[in-house]
Amino acid sequence: MARLFREIMSSCLALEQPLRVAYLGPEGTFSQAAALKHFGQAVISKPMAAIDEVFREVVAGAVNFGVVPVENSTEGAVNHTLDSFLEHDIVICGEVELRIHHHLLVGETTKTDRITRIYSHAQSLAQCRKWLDAHYPSVERVAVSSNADAAKRVKSEWNSAAIAGDMAAQLYGLSKIAEKIEDRPDNSTRFLIIGNQEVPPTGDDKTSIIVSMRNKPGALHELLMPFHSNGIDLTRIETRPSRSGKWTYVFFIDCIGHYQEPLIKDVLEKIGREAVALKVLGSYPKAVL
Amino acid sequence: MARLFREIMSSCLALEQPLRVAYLGPEGTFSQAAALKHFGQAVISKPMAAIDEVFREVVAGAVNFGVVPVENSTEGAVNHTLDSFLEHDIVICGEVELRIHHHLLVGETTKTDRITRIYSHAQSLAQCRKWLDAHYPSVERVAVSSNADAAKRVKSEWNSAAIAGDMAAQLYGLSKIAEKIEDRPDNSTRFLIIGNQEVPPTGDDKTSIIVSMRNKPGALHELLMPFHSNGIDLTRIETRPSRSGKWTYVFFIDCIGHYQEPLIKDVLEKIGREAVALKVLGSYPKAVL
Repeated sequence: MARLFREIMSSCLALEQPLRVAYLGPEGTFSQAAALKHFGQAVISKPMAAIDEVFREVVAGAVNFGVVPVENSTEGAVNHTLDSFLEHDIVICGEVELRIHHHLLVGETTKTDRITRIYSHAQSLAQCRKWLDAHYPSVERVAVSSNADAAKRVKSEWNSAAIAGDMAAQLYGLSKIAEKIEDRPDNSTRFLIIGNQEVPPTGDDKTSIIVSMRNKPGALHELLMPFHSNGIDLTRIETRPSRSGKWTYVFFIDCIGHYQEPLIKDVLEKIGREAVALKVLGSYPKAVL
Repeated sequence: MARLFREIMSSCLALEQPLRVAYLGPEGTFSQAAALKHFGQAVISKPMAAIDEVFREVVAGAVNFGVVPVENSTEGAVNHTLDSFLEHDIVICGEVELRIHHHLLVGETTKTDRITRIYSHAQSLAQCRKWLDAHYPSVERVAVSSNADAAKRVKSEWNSAAIAGDMAAQLYGLSKIAEKIEDRPDNSTRFLIIGNQEVPPTGDDKTSIIVSMRNKPGALHELLMPFHSNGIDLTRIETRPSRSGKWTYVFFIDCIGHYQEPLIKDVLEKIGREAVALKVLGSYPKAVL
């Protein structure tokens, strides 16, 4: 990753262009915090209205990289992101993990005992479900496109609150009426860095693939066998509808290793021979916490 | 299932009590349509505000059965339902499959060129995402607790529309301004019938289990091996966060066969010896379309 960055950074510098990064916006989202953690301040960051738009922006070459959430430790996979990989040809270049703390936020005009609506992203509402059930059981919960969008709304909307993080609270000038309301104290989200260029091995990498198998008994077992017999560790498997037939699925698999390593290359070739379709999404350095 | 029904029906008849069924409400949801398809009209059906409440109602014995959505062919797993199985001790007694057609609905007071908000359940919004992107790209989409709830709202709210099915349209007296707007023509949802009593074998059954494995290389392969070596077909595997540690998962697995059959019993015993935890959710007749 370091090498790839240096290459892209130096070509940007040669052209006197700063690195451009798209993320799931608006400003103040956890995706922006993940972009900051990964790229630092010295980039032009571009908030997009939806996950799919981050993908399109990267495919079109309008930005060098995109940052999208892929998995939360409490609520599981971010399906929009997984499904976007089915629709776009794109490379995973890295991953970032963020500890996620949610707060209940209100604007100046709202009295805490008058809250009638709580806005947030559906994932955030789910990550705080037990806390909400205990403290605001009868208040309407409204899912919006991101938690920063929720924060933006309640700045001017009376008697409503938002669930969002520190960045959004500061950015929209909201007060915290309850802090760290996530149900699980280790609540974390993994983000992916997506781009158009493959990343060379660093010696501590992960590989992500999408596979669809023939709809026959033992297909999943057959898919996993080459990993197992070569001692390759799977870190994750997710199932999603294939969108090519009713009750047919594709598998999203993450394994340890880089696809340029002979062992991984060999396993992927074996799987490719049995699979209906195999797409290598990329190999990239494992996230450092 | 037939035998179990007869038993419960006859005990209800003996006590002069009709069968009581809870479903994800309000009235007019696809869950109610699934309950009708499975049980017919001769039951007392009880709409609940959330999936979790359907589970609680069944566990408490306030109803004989509950009906909850578990999987859509376009949008995938219904996570609330899967996660509820982690929290409640309950038996799956059956499954129902419904073809899902969505319509764009408005009340009398709304002009079709003045729509500023479209309400529906997040799953339904996702099932119609491409249609909405093409026809109402800049109209706000608001996710509410069910599509029947969306229909109920727009009955009285100006300039708003709902995405819901035929039952909701009729029940709340709404007009269809666009029909069958789901992105995939084979869009279908599977519902589970949950209860407190196990269902005897019918000869054409499925078994659902939840398994958590030790977090070690090859764990998933080890889990699938006994199914494979005994020729048992898996129809589905889903991964969810285990909620007992960060980045640890449980697997929801459906296989062909009844857990009282010696072969399945044997496989489950083998898995149970290797697993951290194994819970048999139930064996039940396969859905008839």
